[in-house]
Amino acid sequence: MPNAARRFPRSIATVCLSGTLLDKLEAAAAAGFDGVEIFENDLLTFDGSPADVRRVAEGLGLAITLFQPFRDFEAMPEPQRARNMDRAERKFDVMQALGTDLVLVCSNVQEAAIDDDARAAADLEEMAERAARRGLRVGYEALAWGRHVRRWGHAWKIVREAGHDSLGLIVDSFHTLSIGDDPAGIADVPAEKLFFVQLADAPRLSMDVLSWSRHFRNFPGQGELDVGGFLGAVVRSGYRGPISLEVFNDEFRSAPARLNARDGLRSLVLAEAQAGVLELPAPPRSSGFAFLEFAVDPAARAKLATFLETLGFRLEGQHRSKDVLLYRQGDVSLVLNSEQDSAAAEHFQLHGPSVCAMAVRVDDAARALERARALFCSEWQERRRPDEWPLAGIRASDGTLVLLIDEAEAATSWEDDFLPLPHGAEGPLARVDHVAHALPTGSMDSFVLFWRAVFGLEPQPILEIADPQGLIRSRAMVSADGALRLPLNISESRNTTTGRFLTAFAGAGVHHIAFETTDLFEAVRRLRDGGFATLPIPPNYYDDLAARWGLEEPLLEELRRHDVLYDRDAGGELFHVYSRAFESRFFFEIIERRGATGFGAANAAVRMAAQAR
Amino acid sequence: MPNAARRFPRSIATVCLSGTLLDKLEAAAAAGFDGVEIFENDLLTFDGSPADVRRVAEGLGLAITLFQPFRDFEAMPEPQRARNMDRAERKFDVMQALGTDLVLVCSNVQEAAIDDDARAAADLEEMAERAARRGLRVGYEALAWGRHVRRWGHAWKIVREAGHDSLGLIVDSFHTLSIGDDPAGIADVPAEKLFFVQLADAPRLSMDVLSWSRHFRNFPGQGELDVGGFLGAVVRSGYRGPISLEVFNDEFRSAPARLNARDGLRSLVLAEAQAGVLELPAPPRSSGFAFLEFAVDPAARAKLATFLETLGFRLEGQHRSKDVLLYRQGDVSLVLNSEQDSAAAEHFQLHGPSVCAMAVRVDDAARALERARALFCSEWQERRRPDEWPLAGIRASDGTLVLLIDEAEAATSWEDDFLPLPHGAEGPLARVDHVAHALPTGSMDSFVLFWRAVFGLEPQPILEIADPQGLIRSRAMVSADGALRLPLNISESRNTTTGRFLTAFAGAGVHHIAFETTDLFEAVRRLRDGGFATLPIPPNYYDDLAARWGLEEPLLEELRRHDVLYDRDAGGELFHVYSRAFESRFFFEIIERRGATGFGAANAAVRMAAQAR
Repeated sequence: MPNAARRFPRSIATVCLSGTLLDKLEAAAAAGFDGVEIFENDLLTFDGSPADVRRVAEGLGLAITLFQPFRDFEAMPEPQRARNMDRAERKFDVMQALGTDLVLVCSNVQEAAIDDDARAAADLEEMAERAARRGLRVGYEALAWGRHVRRWGHAWKIVREAGHDSLGLIVDSFHTLSIGDDPAGIADVPAEKLFFVQLADAPRLSMDVLSWSRHFRNFPGQGELDVGGFLGAVVRSGYRGPISLEVFNDEFRSAPARLNARDGLRSLVLAEAQAGVLELPAPPRSSGFAFLEFAVDPAARAKLATFLETLGFRLEGQHRSKDVLLYRQGDVSLVLNSEQDSAAAEHFQLHGPSVCAMAVRVDDAARALERARALFCSEWQERRRPDEWPLAGIRASDGTLVLLIDEAEAATSWEDDFLPLPHGAEGPLARVDHVAHALPTGSMDSFVLFWRAVFGLEPQPILEIADPQGLIRSRAMVSADGALRLPLNISESRNTTTGRFLTAFAGAGVHHIAFETTDLFEAVRRLRDGGFATLPIPPNYYDDLAARWGLEEPLLEELRRHDVLYDRDAGGELFHVYSRAFESRFFFEIIERRGATGFGAANAAVRMAAQAR
Repeated sequence: MPNAARRFPRSIATVCLSGTLLDKLEAAAAAGFDGVEIFENDLLTFDGSPADVRRVAEGLGLAITLFQPFRDFEAMPEPQRARNMDRAERKFDVMQALGTDLVLVCSNVQEAAIDDDARAAADLEEMAERAARRGLRVGYEALAWGRHVRRWGHAWKIVREAGHDSLGLIVDSFHTLSIGDDPAGIADVPAEKLFFVQLADAPRLSMDVLSWSRHFRNFPGQGELDVGGFLGAVVRSGYRGPISLEVFNDEFRSAPARLNARDGLRSLVLAEAQAGVLELPAPPRSSGFAFLEFAVDPAARAKLATFLETLGFRLEGQHRSKDVLLYRQGDVSLVLNSEQDSAAAEHFQLHGPSVCAMAVRVDDAARALERARALFCSEWQERRRPDEWPLAGIRASDGTLVLLIDEAEAATSWEDDFLPLPHGAEGPLARVDHVAHALPTGSMDSFVLFWRAVFGLEPQPILEIADPQGLIRSRAMVSADGALRLPLNISESRNTTTGRFLTAFAGAGVHHIAFETTDLFEAVRRLRDGGFATLPIPPNYYDDLAARWGLEEPLLEELRRHDVLYDRDAGGELFHVYSRAFESRFFFEIIERRGATGFGAANAAVRMAAQAR
């Protein structure tokens, strides 16, 4: 692919970012974009001239790739047609002051628009001729809900008929993919007639395409459209111009602009990699979590240690140089960090006792780090002595620390920093099954992108779960082989268990950790002997299980006695039990999978109601 | 209409209300419902037996009108068919313990369901026969997205074919109206075969009916469906059973249960009135606002008085017995209340300087009060001396105080309590044009219902306005003749001007007040001479006006010079100007209408961006 070597200028529309026009320009530049599309509304509300905008953008190293002031231009009856030509001249004045040569005209949505391609072509040709006199260009784009022109191929036909050098085609992945149109033919558009390319993704929603487009678009890799395939067709055309993100999203309008701009750039690089424009190191293969690290102070450490002991964990190590303890059981390692003046101590100050890092086993930590770097993740390096194991990691969107443990090295390397302590019998828990995060409202897309882009995890369908105080939206990110599973939970209300956790926690964080066991009833019996308190489940739940699944009374009685929840999915059966919460902050789950691959979502409402009591 | 005299038992489904099952039952009883539909999920998560639920409900005076544990019952192939019969027996056990005799079966959505009415009828007949042996009944309802049965008429055909006394029809306004089905024929269903009636409204949304139903239903009068007409058809059938609200709504799931239950009852009474089941006093006719009252302390009063003077207001009265001042201009009266130990003082403590009451002129205050009483509004009576004017009012959903001034009495009666003060020349403002409220997220439906039910105002289409920090949803409530206009604004983000106002204000409140004038340019000139500071509007806005409307330069120059915004709608032109904000809490608008009936929504984003600076 001869074009693959050359990177396209990266652009973002100001409508993707929150704040004033200055905020938006600064955020785009800070993230590393090469240019911006200026949305007219951002200019109208800006307290400065278009020439001021040009100066600011130049100072930030940003090109103004496009101006978008037009609606409903072509194929209007008189006198509207003449008025539109005057309007165009006015906007050309603004473009010249802005220092951009390209204006976007999207297909007319007015009822009054005439269904006549020749008229549309003639109007666009006249506009292009007027633009050409000033050295400007016009790009025509099919809106998915245009009155007569809805497909890129139709817009391209009109552009061809107009036959003016200063008139070209603009394509947008959302407008093409949302109506199931095929982008493949874009590869055959002569590169010099393709004036601009816009990218947006979106979740699959069954609503009218206008509302879908205006409120629910997101960055490539955050949704379910094949934006990479779309971009592939563009690349094959020989196009060399900017690739620009154009996303209308209610949540983006109030998201922090700089973080969101970085997500945008990350999504663009991912789409470029999918389209073969650039090469990224392959995402890591992971066999699961090496350890989970809790930030604690000495008082919280004592309490958490007692709690973990009821779950069968034993103190197995003391860090050689730091105030850090290692608790283990089966393949599960939990690290309790109360080292002064450390990242953990800082985390504890902000969030109280909580998971401050997750260590993930990967097939090649150096390659994983390189990929993360190419995707604009900030890196992290533990402070250490020369004889200690070098722990390195990256930060997720919200600062969550993900450490990378290389499996190619001796699997126990990081553990060499711990002095082994004598310990008792092995407990019944075998490994970490999944780690669930509670996320602030509006941040789901950002986390989905992080885990998908950096670790190659795939988002599962969104589940809606009724907490007594509001709806929770849950989406799991899962690796191809299921070794790494991270359910992400959003609460629309602050009053749900999840919402209250977020308030207590002052931000996103690990909400619960599930451990796998091979015999759940036996595990509960053993742990209860050691003081483990299960979350009590109401008897009505079991009466319904009987009716729903036709379970026999002996099994029901076992379930009831152990507070065990039951579910089935295509893979098989699932048995799970919950602990009570640790200081209303996080809780634990023990799970036995008899083939099931899900998370027992049908039981989540029962769990939440029990926790709310 | 012979049935009109008898009130139907009023019921509400537990899914409409937030909290645990106990919270829901208590809220329904406190609001005054006669019964509840129990949703299975609420029972499953309840930590007590079905018999406990029965006792609690009885203690609260609530009947359990229906139990809803079923999905996908009828017309399934074996062995699912036999399993479903067993499932039914299990659920009949629960119903008997709950003490309800009616189970709802909604039409099957499974792909495996057989498209055969005779099979469906046979299955329902067998279920009904099993139910009958225990003295129970089965109600069959068409889901709008059922696999084969989607219309009430189809469900009714199957019920007729089954021909069992213990099997009847259940109808639901949402399932009928959402798919444009005609409810008229329900009037011809024999009353004894109509087992239950569910009501829900919804906004008109173009999305799949399942998502629409699951997330966006609301109470009758909060949406756009003709629920009153639907209920009319039910009444004509001779039906005498419960009328029950069944609303799935994401916001209701986290709304305060008691307030929401009261809204539910209010909506039900309104629907009953629309269907001719009961008579409500007619809504008041209003000629507009008599006065607006601000809660202030002496320091805030001094500042606000100065601010109002720049708007042309003059001190015209001092209350005879209270620490209350009257500012006037044209037909506008503003009352500044700093009386100790008053509702205003309490309001000031909570919210700071802010509008604490709106006085509305009505044709018959006694009738308006009677209607409000029938709609469960709490009443309010001012503390007063025997020789003072008796001010009475009601409280909106959030406690907003609306005073009722009877126009049939001497128009100036309430003003007699004020000692007139000498004052200067008359200012340029003529009357209150509209009063805008900022509402907390999730409360739009509640306010729409209050103003529609109690005052007969009609909701206008929802507008979406981009603040630099997030999206605002705005919906105006307007009386038939336009004399009373109340735009309601919701911000999804806390960072918008509206969101920050809500935080500063600790709740809903008046966000801005617009005054009408007959010559806006002259008014701005005069007021500026007296120190009025307009909100500065950026020049780019005017360049766009020129392109958009083809305005001539002399007019543009006038607009620019006076910071006047311009809009057009079907009625004509609109000119308006904004003040700077008073302590970031509220602001004023001056408006000249040359025929336009809107609020200049196209300019709201420009105003918000200017305020954000």
